[in-house]
Amino acid sequence: MTASPARPLAVSAGLADFVAATGWEDLPEVVRHAAKRALLNVIAVAAAGSHDRALEIALATLGSFSGKAEASLIGRPERVDAALASFLNAAAANLHDFDDTHLRTIIHPTAPVAPALLALAEGRRIAGRDLVLALALGIEVACRIGNAVSPEHYRRGWHITATCGVFGAALAVGKLLGLDRERLVWALGTASAQSGGLVETLGFMAKSFGVGSAARNGLLAALLAERGFDGPALPLEGPRGFFPVLGEAARLEEVLEGLGARWEILENYEKPYPCGVVLNAVIDGCLALRAEPGFRAEAVRRVTLYGHPLLRQRADRPDVTTGREAQVSAQHAVAACLLWGEAGLGQFSDAAVADPTLLPLKRAVEIVDTEGVPVGGLRILVAFEDGSSRSTTVERARGTDGAPLSDAELEEKLRRLVAWGAPELASRSDAVIEAVWGLDRAEDAGSLMALLRSA
Amino acid sequence: MTASPARPLAVSAGLADFVAATGWEDLPEVVRHAAKRALLNVIAVAAAGSHDRALEIALATLGSFSGKAEASLIGRPERVDAALASFLNAAAANLHDFDDTHLRTIIHPTAPVAPALLALAEGRRIAGRDLVLALALGIEVACRIGNAVSPEHYRRGWHITATCGVFGAALAVGKLLGLDRERLVWALGTASAQSGGLVETLGFMAKSFGVGSAARNGLLAALLAERGFDGPALPLEGPRGFFPVLGEAARLEEVLEGLGARWEILENYEKPYPCGVVLNAVIDGCLALRAEPGFRAEAVRRVTLYGHPLLRQRADRPDVTTGREAQVSAQHAVAACLLWGEAGLGQFSDAAVADPTLLPLKRAVEIVDTEGVPVGGLRILVAFEDGSSRSTTVERARGTDGAPLSDAELEEKLRRLVAWGAPELASRSDAVIEAVWGLDRAEDAGSLMALLRSA
Repeated sequence: MTASPARPLAVSAGLADFVAATGWEDLPEVVRHAAKRALLNVIAVAAAGSHDRALEIALATLGSFSGKAEASLIGRPERVDAALASFLNAAAANLHDFDDTHLRTIIHPTAPVAPALLALAEGRRIAGRDLVLALALGIEVACRIGNAVSPEHYRRGWHITATCGVFGAALAVGKLLGLDRERLVWALGTASAQSGGLVETLGFMAKSFGVGSAARNGLLAALLAERGFDGPALPLEGPRGFFPVLGEAARLEEVLEGLGARWEILENYEKPYPCGVVLNAVIDGCLALRAEPGFRAEAVRRVTLYGHPLLRQRADRPDVTTGREAQVSAQHAVAACLLWGEAGLGQFSDAAVADPTLLPLKRAVEIVDTEGVPVGGLRILVAFEDGSSRSTTVERARGTDGAPLSDAELEEKLRRLVAWGAPELASRSDAVIEAVWGLDRAEDAGSLMALLRSA
Repeated sequence: MTASPARPLAVSAGLADFVAATGWEDLPEVVRHAAKRALLNVIAVAAAGSHDRALEIALATLGSFSGKAEASLIGRPERVDAALASFLNAAAANLHDFDDTHLRTIIHPTAPVAPALLALAEGRRIAGRDLVLALALGIEVACRIGNAVSPEHYRRGWHITATCGVFGAALAVGKLLGLDRERLVWALGTASAQSGGLVETLGFMAKSFGVGSAARNGLLAALLAERGFDGPALPLEGPRGFFPVLGEAARLEEVLEGLGARWEILENYEKPYPCGVVLNAVIDGCLALRAEPGFRAEAVRRVTLYGHPLLRQRADRPDVTTGREAQVSAQHAVAACLLWGEAGLGQFSDAAVADPTLLPLKRAVEIVDTEGVPVGGLRILVAFEDGSSRSTTVERARGTDGAPLSDAELEEKLRRLVAWGAPELASRSDAVIEAVWGLDRAEDAGSLMALLRSA
């Protein structure tokens, strides 16, 4: 006989209780607004990814396994079933790594959560404010689970957006379904059976299978729980549950601490550039240096990035060959910004990566782990062939807590990305923006998706 | 700049090359026969699980997300799309923990692999021997990946049947699709993005979501790769790939060593009892004691199981409340065998677990970790109220390498399980048995599924 271990914190039930008990009136206005910002941003990035080759292949392959065509794909004319729509919209939203980022965990929380809710809202009548509430709660759940395992979990190689996102999607959908505590815990259990996703897949289409599945599996986990599909009592904290298995010395107390008082969505930032968030400071700094009078990219001998170790760990990729890989390549970001003075989707395309004029600049990049530089900060030193040098320091990159995008910048991001990725929808961008800001007053959240489906 | 780590063994490409290059003529006759035995067994256990409540709920919920109804469910009349059929047949096959076991890893390799192949064979014309070959290769892949991470991976809490099974399914389906090395590696990469499954879910319906998804995701990963959905070059061995992330000091050399010369399927054994394989020896021993003249279950004071530590780690569950939990409860197995003298599905049902007459025997069980007892072996000491005692030693449990089921016993298992779980199919049991033994001569493997669908 073995002694029972000390009872772990009941975090699964705690999250379920929180989700079941929290109503619209409990959400501070800033949280409501942050959820709407997250929704606006996820629509923008899903439109941008909607016609990428990864999406085309996924739709062609998985489309033959779609049931009732009742859910829409953002920026596309096809309708598919709600499970596949969740998958494809989530995959599209995260495809360019241009979505939002919860800074502490590097989770992109909206991509797996919002598409599951939007797909459900097309099949069942859901009030707009219920959808905004569920989105805020789902983001909260994913980020709090992520807090408890960060940074060890991502460092080991888990794609945290997918591994934690599936729980956020499950409880967010469970909220819309009105599940009770027991069934919400079952939904967490079924979600836990497919919590996965590897950093090794970043830069490849395979990444999208993980992120898309997180949304789809979260939706299905909640729908299964609604019908009585059961799971363990402690899916997160049990001895062979998520935290012991996918975490490394997880700090469970972080899951419930201050729940309902402190909101993780307020630490979630929409991205200004289509890249891994660790590159924001690289791009800010390089664009600033490039804009200085007399700067000549062809005269650069060496570019040294003095950064937090995360920069090197995640973005030291000198030899990328696709736009998708370039999104996590410091070398590509430096070269593109110094040469072209821009960092939009065009500069992170396959064609841009193949441009041989970038090569000398890519080879000039050196990354140095530097004590005392915060995540999101950076010092850049550019040395020129003539022996001169210039440097700049980025204290807080754009799109992080020091410098979030304004609402107007976010609206502009949506207009630009819709025009770039789903131009047939461009004439409706302002209507979409208006619908999102007013969503909490809409009687039927599903009507938003009607606007987002192209003719 | 960081130094490059030593190049890891190229196991992803090695497995892909092996799968691409191996033909029917390369399979020893014993391997061909073992693959057909595995298929016969998976049909038997899928029929047994076909009407379980978990399956009913999953079909009711996921059926609305099914596309073209072109694939069959073993023992049921409904047809669904190939992805959902893979999911449901795999879930059904593993539901009672009555399927086959690769002893070293405790992988149940056929449940995630065969259903994906059978579903594909209904939509595309596949020769019988190609299906048997693909099944043997898929089992080989799953078990070899499992060897490299065992026993640490399961011990940490990974449900290895699902985590490794998805790779077996992906390469098995990739073989049928005729994918080249590059695409087979992509399929491994997409599979890696959803390699998951937690031991915490065992005993609950949530387990079936992991096992079902392994089959479905393996199928989809190969179909996506066929159309060009790409993935990383080193999905298994890369620095943030399967082995570093889900393994603990994985021994990569075990993946490729002796490939094509030594076959893991020959270490795969069909189960005689519907339980976790660690209970086989418990059941053998208890049934033997129960059969002794003069044995009186009501006179038992204490039952001590002297076992390998795995027995206690996996099966020390005194307070189970469902049949599914009972499948991994040594306490329930002891009580049921000593009281009833049988260990079939009826003794591991919800009703059996609820029987209060088992309680005194369950409470009498004590499990002692014992040096020198092999996995699969056991010594049992039963002490009676009158001070007397009896003991027995199981060197090799039935259904393990010392005492595999004979072909005739396997056929009988199929007949009994079909009669138990899918009685409408019972009149066809002999035809099914004949079809499986002759599958390598069948022109269309899909015709097997026509036999397995109930009217």
